[in-house]
Amino acid sequence: MHTPWDHRYAQRTQRMHSSAIRELLKLTEQPDIISFGGGLPGPEVFPIEEFAAACDRVLHEQGALALQYSTTEGYLPLREQIARHTARYNITITPENILITSGSQQALDLLGKIFINRGDRILVESPTYMGALQAWNAYGAEYVSVPSDKHGMITDALEEALRYGPKFIYVLPNFQNPTGITLTQERRQKLVQLADRYGVPIIEDDPYGQLRYEGEHLPSIVVLDGQFRGNHNDICYRGNVIYLSTFSKILSPGLRLAWMVAPPEVIRKLVQAKQGADLHTATFNQVVAHEISKGGFLDEHIKVIRAVYKERRDAMLAAMDRYFPPEVDWTQPEGGLFLWGTMPKYLRASEVLKEAIEQKVAFVPGDSFFPNGGGHNTMRINFSYATPEKIQEGIQRLGDVLHRQVKATVKS
Amino acid sequence: MHTPWDHRYAQRTQRMHSSAIRELLKLTEQPDIISFGGGLPGPEVFPIEEFAAACDRVLHEQGALALQYSTTEGYLPLREQIARHTARYNITITPENILITSGSQQALDLLGKIFINRGDRILVESPTYMGALQAWNAYGAEYVSVPSDKHGMITDALEEALRYGPKFIYVLPNFQNPTGITLTQERRQKLVQLADRYGVPIIEDDPYGQLRYEGEHLPSIVVLDGQFRGNHNDICYRGNVIYLSTFSKILSPGLRLAWMVAPPEVIRKLVQAKQGADLHTATFNQVVAHEISKGGFLDEHIKVIRAVYKERRDAMLAAMDRYFPPEVDWTQPEGGLFLWGTMPKYLRASEVLKEAIEQKVAFVPGDSFFPNGGGHNTMRINFSYATPEKIQEGIQRLGDVLHRQVKATVKS
Repeated sequence: MHTPWDHRYAQRTQRMHSSAIRELLKLTEQPDIISFGGGLPGPEVFPIEEFAAACDRVLHEQGALALQYSTTEGYLPLREQIARHTARYNITITPENILITSGSQQALDLLGKIFINRGDRILVESPTYMGALQAWNAYGAEYVSVPSDKHGMITDALEEALRYGPKFIYVLPNFQNPTGITLTQERRQKLVQLADRYGVPIIEDDPYGQLRYEGEHLPSIVVLDGQFRGNHNDICYRGNVIYLSTFSKILSPGLRLAWMVAPPEVIRKLVQAKQGADLHTATFNQVVAHEISKGGFLDEHIKVIRAVYKERRDAMLAAMDRYFPPEVDWTQPEGGLFLWGTMPKYLRASEVLKEAIEQKVAFVPGDSFFPNGGGHNTMRINFSYATPEKIQEGIQRLGDVLHRQVKATVKS
Repeated sequence: MHTPWDHRYAQRTQRMHSSAIRELLKLTEQPDIISFGGGLPGPEVFPIEEFAAACDRVLHEQGALALQYSTTEGYLPLREQIARHTARYNITITPENILITSGSQQALDLLGKIFINRGDRILVESPTYMGALQAWNAYGAEYVSVPSDKHGMITDALEEALRYGPKFIYVLPNFQNPTGITLTQERRQKLVQLADRYGVPIIEDDPYGQLRYEGEHLPSIVVLDGQFRGNHNDICYRGNVIYLSTFSKILSPGLRLAWMVAPPEVIRKLVQAKQGADLHTATFNQVVAHEISKGGFLDEHIKVIRAVYKERRDAMLAAMDRYFPPEVDWTQPEGGLFLWGTMPKYLRASEVLKEAIEQKVAFVPGDSFFPNGGGHNTMRINFSYATPEKIQEGIQRLGDVLHRQVKATVKS
């Protein structure tokens, strides 16, 4: 259909593309595909009964409030609850430090809107979360990337990158999307020190922090930044780090409910941007999430999620040991939803995916996670969505494809 | 708190301001204020029991789907339902023409994102919906404005404005926000003809179209555009008009659920923009809205809303006749949520509001609805939120303030 809109697109649309992950989600709708593609929670862990009870209570006790327009900042009792949750880590913040967003994706978009001018450089890990790149490309961001190894962002390479004058640093320290890798305590401290020395602020994206299946919890960047030059007991929020987290992985992604911790001045600017973007996040979802979680339910529920996902991670690692060719390497995540596979350079993940889909198994080729190119031989593999039996079956299928492609290439 | 974010704001933030309406919403939280400020539905018309039943059915029958991530385009059964609803007006569209958005505010934001380059001119009515200005200011829009009278946008002034080469025309033909005025059939046709002659596409924003309390339904711009040069029975969607509507006024604004009708090519671009903005609109809300409305409930429910709001509109018009000074003039809306007051030039709405708030009554000064200045003596007054008794009481208080300010100015 030819319409007068065709030649009217804004310049910024040239850098907008449909994400490979979103397109893959469509594949997962085919019931016979075993998908390791999306970042989907296992549906078995959705607390259906608690949701139904909370919806009923909210509608009958506060229906007029829950179905009405509300303030852009977010539902105050929910922000108070988040402030109390944050206080567990001894960081003192108030609801004025918190903005409720329509998923963390909106937090990334609003941060781009208020901070990124065309051509601004953003310092990111490589690979990094493609959703952040997608949000910020629309505002004309360029990327200075710092490589990672199995301990996370290589902080020895950070100082050189900081000399490019990035607007901010973006980092996912816990069970990173896409690699599943966790930044070590030592590197976290180095990151805080270097950011302070160069006066560059940090955005810490932490969707999976509570989903640890082994090892000890490491303090967040925002906590370490609070301790830096401060005292170690009641940690002040210094405002250098904007912290993002979400209800998507501990409650339900279908609610689109997340939050951001930032200095009050930044929150005010974000509120102005959010007014223009969607007025506010759905009131009903905020009130229901508050209702479900107010009695401490989430703490118990997270234990259930951890047990389910740990079993799936273990099933996947065991199946990979058994079915993947020795030429392929992968990470051993201590938590989160993903692990990261690296194939020999002579293989292309996009080619492997084509054959994999014929065999009814899917993953995400890793190249979309690299801000400045590369990673053609890498793959992101999700272990939270499929059951252990499906994981075993899917990894066996994927292993067969990998064995064939390795052999075919070595022969030719 | 001084932080390294302070000097890092993007240039576009200079044109972002907190909306007067949003700030006013905070006032309405004081229980002793009678607020004619927001555009809030009357809470009495929220269908609480139908919501509770739908939430329960959705969670128990489709919980795993409703709480999960979903596609950016929106829940297919809901888009199919909207396509069927649109077919009532003989316009044939498919789900590929529909994008579900997180409220109409997001539709405006995404349209700005994909179409507006800095400095682009947008043709708008003056006054027009301030939420559109707020969304598009962030993308650097400039405005060519066409004045309105009691029949809506003055189409005789449209041709001259079209010569400025606007990127598109933005119009709210039914019970406009802020004025409550409806564009006449004759002017609608003139608008379609002139837009066609100049090759300029139209965005038609129609949140209140179904809330008519008297008079005959007038065909939408999108329908008239489909009839133009076509046949009058099965009207094709020509793609020149992007049509926006919402569940906010017929079901609940707290769900943040709206939709857009556009050519498939535009939908694809919007989907890319929406992926970066919030991934998708809350799945749960979409499935629940579909569940509530699938059996024809909304048709019945809209009759209830019309009856309630008609009574409130009538109560307000009667109270104004009784309590407002003859120096003040106002519109007689046939539907929607608002009417528009015009005071003598020597009064300022912002000064009236100050005194009004002391008297515990609120409205929105009209100047924020003017894209290029003006309107200091105008006011937007909402009649959907307060009960008839409160309306009578609030208009009496406001009338007292107006009488005092008219007298004081005439004396001095």
